[in-house]
This record gives sequence, structure tokens and C-alpha cells, in this order.
Amino acid sequence: MVKMDTQQILTKVSDFMNDQVPFQRSLGFEITQFSSAKGEVKFRWQDELMGNVPQRILHGGVTATALDTAGGLVAIAGMVERLDNPSESYLIERLSRCGTIDLRVDYLRPGRGTEFIASATVIRSGNKVAVARMELHNEDGIHIAFGTGTYLVG
Amino acid sequence: MVKMDTQQILTKVSDFMNDQVPFQRSLGFEITQFSSAKGEVKFRWQDELMGNVPQRILHGGVTATALDTAGGLVAIAGMVERLDNPSESYLIERLSRCGTIDLRVDYLRPGRGTEFIASATVIRSGNKVAVARMELHNEDGIHIAFGTGTYLVG
Amino acid sequence: MVKMDTQQILTKVSDFMNDQVPFQRSLGFEITQFSSAKGEVKFRWQDELMGNVPQRILHGGVTATALDTAGGLVAIAGMVERLDNPSESYLIERLSRCGTIDLRVDYLRPGRGTEFIASATVIRSGNKVAVARMELHNEDGIHIAFGTGTYLVG
Amino acid sequence: MVKMDTQQILTKVSDFMNDQVPFQRSLGFEITQFSSAKGEVKFRWQDELMGNVPQRILHGGVTATALDTAGGLVAIAGMVERLDNPSESYLIERLSRCGTIDLRVDYLRPGRGTEFIASATVIRSGNKVAVARMELHNEDGIHIAFGTGTYLVG
Repeated sequence: MVKMDTQQILTKVSDFMNDQVPFQRSLGFEITQFSSAKGEVKFRWQDELMGNVPQRILHGGVTATALDTAGGLVAIAGMVERLDNPSESYLIERLSRCGTIDLRVDYLRPGRGTEFIASATVIRSGNKVAVARMELHNEDGIHIAFGTGTYLVG
Repeated sequence: MVKMDTQQILTKVSDFMNDQVPFQRSLGFEITQFSSAKGEVKFRWQDELMGNVPQRILHGGVTATALDTAGGLVAIAGMVERLDNPSESYLIERLSRCGTIDLRVDYLRPGRGTEFIASATVIRSGNKVAVARMELHNEDGIHIAFGTGTYLVG
Repeated sequence: MVKMDTQQILTKVSDFMNDQVPFQRSLGFEITQFSSAKGEVKFRWQDELMGNVPQRILHGGVTATALDTAGGLVAIAGMVERLDNPSESYLIERLSRCGTIDLRVDYLRPGRGTEFIASATVIRSGNKVAVARMELHNEDGIHIAFGTGTYLVG
Repeated sequence: MVKMDTQQILTKVSDFMNDQVPFQRSLGFEITQFSSAKGEVKFRWQDELMGNVPQRILHGGVTATALDTAGGLVAIAGMVERLDNPSESYLIERLSRCGTIDLRVDYLRPGRGTEFIASATVIRSGNKVAVARMELHNEDGIHIAFGTGTYLVG
């Protein structure tokens, strides 16, 4: 039975998410931070992400997806870091039980830019449920949206 | 100056959204109802919409996008129906000022199915702000998610 | 070790909440339904509940309190009904771990009336987390507010 | 026609809210900051505010009320500061149209303490709608809850 340390697990899960989650790949998401301290996803502007062509701004659903993804990362990392040398099968079982319970997005400014950064920190952590706060900024530091997500991690 | 009646406007806006909103098109969204009584969007399963490959379920961001889109429809339709024979330029100005202020999504069940229907009704309507409740179901009537959205329509 | 059946437990918990929760008592809340199918709280108008004196409407905090209380009831009842003949100490331990994780309130109309009814049903139920939808109506059936609450029940 | 400058108006509105809003008075709320930069409300522990007697913690409805009140303050102050020397009747008309559209509360830790501070800042400001983020802390700086509120100010 192969056991993995925390950093190995986080790297493996991160690689898997970058490569194997079709919707995140089609949006061009790249995981750039993945620990219990911070989750971060970056993506570049693509015309396919537009919700408003005349104004050339991101669809609100792209913003929601980025915030949900960043929040899920930090929630999952917290769960992983609490595991003590888990077997791969136990890890997979735990990961498969994780999911978003609810998500709130506050849209502050139009989603304009060439690169976007969604970042998340945990505001409530527990064995069963984690709550994260998220922010979306563009490459100039313009704050586009806030998010709050409640995640099942038990 | 061309003026349009309400039904003409709704048809024109609906056609525009089906054809010209890149993110909705890439997700395969089709607007199937668009009035102040109900907004509805349908889309079919595509592998690119997956958030979880082993379990083959929709990414939570797809669910959020569908709910936000349906809620936006019913909010916009209410705004349009209150206009009295607007000019095209005034209509475009009003539409361009519409947007999502905040969105809450409650994920109830895994997003599995071959076709998905996001529907919305208005629970608070006003000259400046509309609030909508949304639901996502699959082709078997399985209830996948609830949503609530607050929209600027002023 | 005294064991109790589900209905005994619900009655006991309901009596406790009616008598022993100071904030609910000072607002005049009375629990009128308490099962996994429905939670319901009624209360009568009192001048002390006003948030707006000229218009004589409920403070938004009263509405939030009523919705949160109704949602908590239906979430707790679901947890209690899943227990199989628990000891009193185990029951108390489980109840003490319950709590609201997050709450959303949508204010639809001014809180006017002589009697108010907050009711709740579960939209997502689980061993660890329950999500409830709530509504506040007055004695004429006027719909004053919607709510959604996520509760820890594990 | 009496006209008032911004600071006079804020002082007058603040005095009115401290003295004349029954529900806030019965909870012991005192407005300690009231500007477009920050809204703040303080209140002291009272046994009547308990939601959980064995654990002696605030009812979640008290937390929601404090957060909503602080958010409303900062939203209203922003509206007032944009007025240019309004008449009293116009001011009253504008204030009477203000209200909470929706509120989200995230409960982070049990509400224990001897004094509580609810503070708010604006994250989205506009002529019609303002969105505020709120926090509740106790006298030791323990962070008890986060909130987000969307307010009609038009």
C-alpha cells in the first residue's frame, strides 16, 4: 500500500485538476497555489469567456467558476493536510466526498483584463465543513468580485 | 427612429443572446423561455462541462452559469416589458446597464443527466433591482440546484 | 439509562426551545411545527420588533431571526429522526454540536402584519449538513421574505 | 426650507436610529461610526440575547441583526454623502426608500463575549444599490461572523 506525504498529495491532486478536469481546462484555468493557507487559480482572457460582446467583459458564470474553484482548492488542501499518511484509496474516497454546498458571488466591477487571478482563504475550518472567502482580481489588481463558499470536506 | 413592441424586443434580445454571447454558446445554452413570468435555458451534456471525471458530473461553475443566465433572463424581460415602445438606442442603453449584483447557488445533488433545464421566476421586482429564484433540473426532473440572484435592471 | 423515542425527543426539545431560549422568548416566538418535514415558528406583532417607526414594519433582524430559527428546527428534527433510541447524554451532545453555518435572507416586502409565520423545509439533507429553505408570511398570506440556511447537524 | 450639511444629517440620522428604532434599542445597539467609509454598531452582552443557554452564546439572529444594521449604516451614509444640501422632506423620502435587499451571514465562531462590535465597509457603491461587507468581533478581537448585504439606496 503506497502512502504519500502531504506535499506529494497536493502536487498529485493539483496535477490531476490541471490536466483532467475538462471544464477548468477549457476555461484555461491553471492552479498556482494549493495549500490550506491559500488556493489560487489563474486564467487568461479568451474571447470565448465573454458574456458581453460590446463591452468585452467576462460572463458572470466564468467569475463564479473561478471563485468556486479557488475556494474548493483551499478547502480540499485543509482536508488533505489533516490526513496522516493516507492510503491512495482512502484519499480518493475522501476527495470524492468533497463538494460545494453553497456559493455566493458578489459582482463588484466589470470583468475586464488580460489575466485573472482567483484566490481563496479559509474563514471556517472543520472536519466536515469548510467555509472560504474568495476574490477575483485582474492583472492590474482591479478587484472584480468577492465570493463565499461552503464546502463539504468530511 | 424604429420602435419595437415588447414581443419583438424579447425575440430580438433572445436571438442575440443565443447567437452572440460566446460563453453561453460554448456551453450549448439555448434560451427556451424569455418573459417576465419565466426565464428558461436548456443545454445538453457535453464531456467538456465535467468537473468530476470519475463520477461524470457537471462542474459547479456550469450550474452557476446556467442559474445566473436564467435569472438574468427573467429580470431583463421584466425590465423590457415595463418599457413603452422604446427606441432601439434607449433599449440598448438600458440593456447595457443590466447586470448581476449577487448570486447564491445551493448545490443539492450531483449534476448528472443528458439534458439540463435552468428556470427562473421573479420574487422581487422593481424599477432598479429584481430578485429571481432559479432551479436546475435534468431531463428526469431530478432537482440538481437552487439559485437566488439579485439583478440591476435600472 | 433513559432512552426516548423520536416524538418524545421532539416534544422535549420543542418545549425546551419555547421556554429556555431567551432571545426567542423575548421576540415571542412559539414553535408550532417541528418535524423533518417542516419547521414552523409563529410570533405576534409587538412595537419592540419595529425597525422602522414611521412605516411600522419589522426590523430586518427579526425576519432573519425567525427564518434562521425555522430552518434550524427542520434541520435538527431531521437529525433527531435519524437517531435510533439515543441516550439523553448522547442526544444533548449531538444537539450541542448543531449550528447555523450560513444564512441568506431575501427581503421581498415590508414586514407588516399582526401575526407572522416562518416556515422551513429541507432541500438537502445529510449526516453532517442540512440545507433548508424558509419563508416568512403574515396572517394574510403576504410573502415577506425568503431564506436559505446551511446547518451543521453532524 | 431648512437645508442641512452632510455631517449634520449623519448626526441627526444617527441620533434618530439610536433613540427611535425599538428593536435596536431593545438589543442595546449603539451607533459608534456612521460615514460612507465605515458603519459600526456596539452592544453589550445581555442574557436576553442568548440563543444557547448551556453554552451562553448569542442567538444567530442577534448576529444577523448587528451585521445588517452595520451594513445599512454604511450604505445609507454613502447615499447621504452624495446628496447636495437636500431639504429635510427630500432626505426623509430618500431614507424611507432605503432597505435591505438581501443579506448573507457566515457564522465562524460561537458568539461569546462581554461587548460586540459589528463593522461594515462598502464593496460596491452606486446610485441605486450598495453592497457592504460586515464583520462581528468581540472585545478580545475574536472574529465571530462575516456578513454581506445588498442595500437599496435609490
